[in-house]
Amino acid sequence: MAAQKSVHAPDKPQPDAARRSQRSRQAIYDAALALVGEVGYPKTTIEGIAARAGVGKQTIYRWWSSKADVLLEAFLDLGDRAARDPGADPGAAYAIPDTGDLAADLKAVLRTTVDELRDPAFEVPSRALAAEGLVDEKLGRRFVAKLLEPSLQLYVDRLRAAQDAGQVRPEIDPRIALELFVSPLAQRWLQHTAPISYEYTDTLVDYALYGLAPR
Amino acid sequence: MAAQKSVHAPDKPQPDAARRSQRSRQAIYDAALALVGEVGYPKTTIEGIAARAGVGKQTIYRWWSSKADVLLEAFLDLGDRAARDPGADPGAAYAIPDTGDLAADLKAVLRTTVDELRDPAFEVPSRALAAEGLVDEKLGRRFVAKLLEPSLQLYVDRLRAAQDAGQVRPEIDPRIALELFVSPLAQRWLQHTAPISYEYTDTLVDYALYGLAPR
Repeated sequence: MAAQKSVHAPDKPQPDAARRSQRSRQAIYDAALALVGEVGYPKTTIEGIAARAGVGKQTIYRWWSSKADVLLEAFLDLGDRAARDPGADPGAAYAIPDTGDLAADLKAVLRTTVDELRDPAFEVPSRALAAEGLVDEKLGRRFVAKLLEPSLQLYVDRLRAAQDAGQVRPEIDPRIALELFVSPLAQRWLQHTAPISYEYTDTLVDYALYGLAPR
Repeated sequence: MAAQKSVHAPDKPQPDAARRSQRSRQAIYDAALALVGEVGYPKTTIEGIAARAGVGKQTIYRWWSSKADVLLEAFLDLGDRAARDPGADPGAAYAIPDTGDLAADLKAVLRTTVDELRDPAFEVPSRALAAEGLVDEKLGRRFVAKLLEPSLQLYVDRLRAAQDAGQVRPEIDPRIALELFVSPLAQRWLQHTAPISYEYTDTLVDYALYGLAPR
């Protein structure tokens, strides 16, 4: 991320300072996520994040201009850490697998998502931020564009590959199609409308691919 | 509703008093919905609702025990008024039509829902309440059980009728199946992930019924 560059002095590299900065940065992310989960977005402040992270307020303002910016990067970092596979190329861990079996690939990814949604480290801050996004449209749209939409585009890519392979009808719009299995899971989780499980997401994939009407 | 009974004196009917009570009740509902839309659920108070409705605080406490109770009935009343067809039986307006054409019936109902979701009188308070339900699980579950789930059961009934008519495969679980077209609309509306339109909900119905895979 662009802000990362500012941790280096302009003339020469300072490895110790960079390491200290990385530790501060991580402490700030952790503090921001914990706070927003505990007190909600409106009551989360830069001062509160600084105090909890054990850094000066100016350290935060040097790297970010608002609490929304801190939280945005904190969530991106959280997603990076969850998706990171030590053996894989950076970025490679994000693609949805393409084994040639579309149903199996979608089921595998959605099962991983079920695990993530149930992890309190992800669930509590995500829920607090989503709640604020419902009533603060500008914030909501920003977080959707930066955090949600990029992950939905991975489904678009996988569905396009399935179209190329003749496994999805060519006239289907992948950006709408993915919502048939992603949105039900999102709504159950967000609104507590019903339990989520692997069996449930497997069923969503089967219904979406093969439809409800007799074939 | 049970609380309605308390507006009548125990010995004889008092039509004027009942009319005044009904006016007060409506003013309280309107005030509660307006306030929750303007300041959010946490800052909405019984005192604030009473002041805005022009009634005494005790009038509210006589009929309801909490702001959650007031809002629950206010939303039920809002739904009643939206769904009320002056020529129809009370309650009849709630069923999803069964013309024998499942796709057409679902599309018609979802188009009505699109209109409702875009109506600020419904949207603003609903969004404020949904936001609170995301972080206050007890409140969220209560409103889902009382407001959302009954409307979802209408889809369950319509899908069961379609199963009886051989238009939906018998092994499909209707409570999950309805989520393929209801949840995408809900998520786009709630989270501002993408625009909603009649064309969009028509597409969802076609994808859900006929699936994404080649037939």
